Amino acid sequence: MPTAPAIKLRVFSLNCWGIHYLSQHCSERYEMIGQLLKEEEHDLVLLQEVWSESDYLFLKKTLAHSHPYTHYFKSGVIGSGLAVFSKHKILDTFLYRYSINGYPYMAHHGDWFGGKAVGMVILDICDLTVHAYVTHLHAEYCREKDAYLPHRVVQAWELLHFIRHTSGGADLVILGGDLNMHPRDLGTRLLLAYTGLRDSYTEAERFEGCEEGITLIAENPFINKKELEPFENGIRIDYILFKGLSRVSVKCESLSTTTGSVPGKPFPYSDHEALSGVLLLRSEEGGGDRPQRCSAEPDPGLVDMVNEARTEVKVKTLQGAEDQMRLAVTGLQERLQKHSQTQPVEQGRVQGEPTSTPANSP
Amino acid sequence: MPTAPAIKLRVFSLNCWGIHYLSQHCSERYEMIGQLLKEEEHDLVLLQEVWSESDYLFLKKTLAHSHPYTHYFKSGVIGSGLAVFSKHKILDTFLYRYSINGYPYMAHHGDWFGGKAVGMVILDICDLTVHAYVTHLHAEYCREKDAYLPHRVVQAWELLHFIRHTSGGADLVILGGDLNMHPRDLGTRLLLAYTGLRDSYTEAERFEGCEEGITLIAENPFINKKELEPFENGIRIDYILFKGLSRVSVKCESLSTTTGSVPGKPFPYSDHEALSGVLLLRSEEGGGDRPQRCSAEPDPGLVDMVNEARTEVKVKTLQGAEDQMRLAVTGLQERLQKHSQTQPVEQGRVQGEPTSTPANSP
Repeated sequence: MPTAPAIKLRVFSLNCWGIHYLSQHCSERYEMIGQLLKEEEHDLVLLQEVWSESDYLFLKKTLAHSHPYTHYFKSGVIGSGLAVFSKHKILDTFLYRYSINGYPYMAHHGDWFGGKAVGMVILDICDLTVHAYVTHLHAEYCREKDAYLPHRVVQAWELLHFIRHTSGGADLVILGGDLNMHPRDLGTRLLLAYTGLRDSYTEAERFEGCEEGITLIAENPFINKKELEPFENGIRIDYILFKGLSRVSVKCESLSTTTGSVPGKPFPYSDHEALSGVLLLRSEEGGGDRPQRCSAEPDPGLVDMVNEARTEVKVKTLQGAEDQMRLAVTGLQERLQKHSQTQPVEQGRVQGEPTSTPANSP
Repeated sequence: MPTAPAIKLRVFSLNCWGIHYLSQHCSERYEMIGQLLKEEEHDLVLLQEVWSESDYLFLKKTLAHSHPYTHYFKSGVIGSGLAVFSKHKILDTFLYRYSINGYPYMAHHGDWFGGKAVGMVILDICDLTVHAYVTHLHAEYCREKDAYLPHRVVQAWELLHFIRHTSGGADLVILGGDLNMHPRDLGTRLLLAYTGLRDSYTEAERFEGCEEGITLIAENPFINKKELEPFENGIRIDYILFKGLSRVSVKCESLSTTTGSVPGKPFPYSDHEALSGVLLLRSEEGGGDRPQRCSAEPDPGLVDMVNEARTEVKVKTLQGAEDQMRLAVTGLQERLQKHSQTQPVEQGRVQGEPTSTPANSP
């Protein structure tokens, strides 16, 4: 049976570390980034930490011919820092700001003013509807004493729900960004498990770049090696995730990272390494990875994971995240019960009781 | 040809005016509201300004049997004030906070701390997927000198995009709430035109209640009549909107409002009148009101409307709303051009130029 020819989609993601007066060699690095993107001509470029609009406008000018479609997501006092450049037409955009962006009294960390958010662009790529998301979750700062851990779990939780609720009409979903989470962190696991997104690093048929796909590497001259401890070589916190929906099957042909130094240049593009992935899309009649479900799949592992998250997220004011998690757990439990045709496992909860209750209900 | 029996859905919406120490007779009014809801047994109850969690918990207890499914949306410092009670199972919830909630320096107006938002609940009603939205847009305070007008336009803009992007999987969409906008206000027109939602007041086969469907009425003892000027009798700012999607056709059988006083009680339920609507749903094979489109319909009137909004929204920091509007205008213009098979009407814009540009681009 003849199959349709595959569509090759090249995706790029980079945290540009574009904080003027703080990030080193900012203008020079943007020139390097612009040059790279102009030459490489990726289909889709997902950038984070483009804090200055003038830097965005510089890139826009540089990429006017290679990437005629672009969107800069504004949010909060100084913007979201999120920018998209595309060879393919952007049909629509939408921004979701996370409910919590660090503690105001730690405003010197910068994230709070930045209005952390996830941006969505809807693209038309060869008659496929592609929903591409770009985000930057709250920075980690210190692994050992991570006051922001619950914040990132909540952000991951909101991110996965935003993707679930806004990707219904997509043929292909792509998420690129700096998640500030390790691959086995709770937030990453929740995100992948709930959305069905696949990690291009683990899925790539070919990989080239830093060992174990790390994107914050010790060799990078802008990195404070002490902040990497106890991970001597570095950590993997930047991702390109993807999934095909009903009409499309996707595989990741290759993934590469930059490796710190740039040939012929005195410094790297950023303090993060860039990711470049090649996705192969194939239209399928009635096929695809898996159908989009409005509610979460009844995966038993999720119940434990959500319970773990609830234990972790104890901050009372986290905008109903705990409620939502309880709702999810209850929903999952009910689905599992339906599957196994048994009675409710949770004592004291009967059919007809609210699926959602306030965090502090008696 | 035999048709499937219609499903009757009774929907209730009320701004409860639940600001303790400011709103009069708060506890007594919640008792009245709880009693009304318990007796009336609407399928779906959408409440706004339930600021105090204790009031929510009181209602939850009161309605435990009549409305076993409920959700309270938390947001910001003191919550969103949004609550849903349902006879039908709530499968999922999601909250979107508007990017702008009034000026911080006008914090005494209260809205800013409230974290204005739109909440979505996904319900299973007789095997139909219903996406119900509840919201409360920024208060008006003074029609003549309305410093908040651009804020409400932006909120309406965000609201309509949130609904568009999250309602793809729905059979039926319902929005209930206090929009703080008159029927012919720009924000209302944008909302209806972009989402395809229909106004139950204009659509109802039978209407009973206040003249012209007004929901803030001069006779209400909690109302400061001066604030209603120049609308002597009152204004219509609360709505139940609806639309059926692919599988479902909907009509509004009836709509009613409360009319200020409550028989046998010394005061009304709130400073707003409550809305009760009866929707009749009918499953249709391949039918329904209109298919959900990811992008806006190419309605020429929208172009003028969005241009009008852009003129109105001149606040620079409004989180890219102007960008998004420009994107929408460009998209609409291109669609119109395609329709009429003519060349671009906008001078200086050529095919291949970005569909989205920053608000302050040269």
